[in-house]
Amino acid sequence: VDNDRLSQQVAFIIEIDKLKDILRRTYIMSGEKLENSAEHSWQLALMAILLSEHSNEPIDVGHVVKMVLIHDLVEIDAGDTYCYDTAAEQDKIEREMRAADRIFGILPKDQGHELRLLWEEFEARETPEARFAAALDRLMPMLLNYHTAGRSWKEHGIRQSQARARNSHIVEGSRALWDTADRMIEEAVARGYLKPD
Amino acid sequence: VDNDRLSQQVAFIIEIDKLKDILRRTYIMSGEKLENSAEHSWQLALMAILLSEHSNEPIDVGHVVKMVLIHDLVEIDAGDTYCYDTAAEQDKIEREMRAADRIFGILPKDQGHELRLLWEEFEARETPEARFAAALDRLMPMLLNYHTAGRSWKEHGIRQSQARARNSHIVEGSRALWDTADRMIEEAVARGYLKPD
Repeated sequence: VDNDRLSQQVAFIIEIDKLKDILRRTYIMSGEKLENSAEHSWQLALMAILLSEHSNEPIDVGHVVKMVLIHDLVEIDAGDTYCYDTAAEQDKIEREMRAADRIFGILPKDQGHELRLLWEEFEARETPEARFAAALDRLMPMLLNYHTAGRSWKEHGIRQSQARARNSHIVEGSRALWDTADRMIEEAVARGYLKPD
Repeated sequence: VDNDRLSQQVAFIIEIDKLKDILRRTYIMSGEKLENSAEHSWQLALMAILLSEHSNEPIDVGHVVKMVLIHDLVEIDAGDTYCYDTAAEQDKIEREMRAADRIFGILPKDQGHELRLLWEEFEARETPEARFAAALDRLMPMLLNYHTAGRSWKEHGIRQSQARARNSHIVEGSRALWDTADRMIEEAVARGYLKPD
C-alpha cells in the first residue's frame, strides 16, 4: 500500500512537469522569453516568505507558500487565462474545475483533497492567506512589466485604468505592496509603458 | 526604514529573476527545452511537501521547502555545475561562496543571513532536512532523464556506475526514494538509457 502511495505521488510529480510548458503573457526580466507558470510559482513562493511582514493581517506563511506553489496547476489542462481577457474569464471557472478534478485526482486521496482545498481557498480570496497570495500574484507581473519597459502591457495596449482595476485588490492583502504597485503604475504612465486614459 | 526594507526585498526579487535563465543539463519531460533552475526549484518544493512521509528521519517540511526554493540562487553568478563534471566541481565552492555574499547581501540583513544559513545547511547535508532536500535534488533529474528516454544521460555518455555513485546519497535522506531511484537505474540500463559498465 505504501509503495502504491509513492507511485501515485511520483505520477503526480511527473504530470505537473507540464506546467513548465505553460506560457504566461509577461516576459522575464532579461527579456529573453515569456515566463512560464512553474517559474512564476517559484518566485511567488519566495515572495511569500520574504514579504510576509507586509501582510495586512497575520498569516501562516507556510500555508501561503503551499498555496502559491499549486495555484496555477489547473492551467495544465485549462491553459493560462490572460488577466485582461474578459471573454476567456467567462468559462474559466468550469475549465479549471474539471482540470482540478483530474490533476489533484492523481495523488493519494488525502493529499489530493488537501491541495484541492488549497486551490479553492486561493481562488475564493476569503482568507488572509489567500488575499496575501493574490496580492503577490498580481504584484509580480507588474514588476516584470515595469522592468521590461512595459513590454507586455504595450503588446496588448493596456491602459492605466485597466491596470489599476485588475490590480487594485492587492490592497486587500497588503497596503504596503499596493502603495508600491500604485507608484509603479503612475511611473509606468509617465514613461509611456501604460496608456493614459 | 520600513520602506527601505521593502525596497531591498523588491531589489532581491528582481535580482533572482535571473534564475529563470540558468539552464540545467536535463530536459523537461515534454522534451521541448532544457530545464531552468527556477522551475526546478519549484518542483522540488512541491516534492518536499508531497514526499515528506518518505524521509528516513522526522523533518520540518517548511524548512525543507525554504531550502529547496533558495538552494540554486548562487548559480545566478556561479552558473550551474553539471553533476558529472568533476573538474568544474573543484572551484565550485569558491565561486558559489562569492555568489552567496553578493546575492543574499541584497536583502535586509536579517533575511539575507537566514537564507545564507539555509543555503550553507543545504550544502553541508548534515541535518535531516538537508539530507532530504539533497535526496529530492538528485531524484528529480533522474525522473526527467528516465522519462525522456535518457536523453541527457545519452548526450553526456553517462555510465550506470556514475549514475549510481552520484545519486547514492539519496539513501541518506530516504530509503524509499533510493529504492525507486535504484530500480530506475536498473531499468535505464536495460533500456539503453544508461551505459552498462
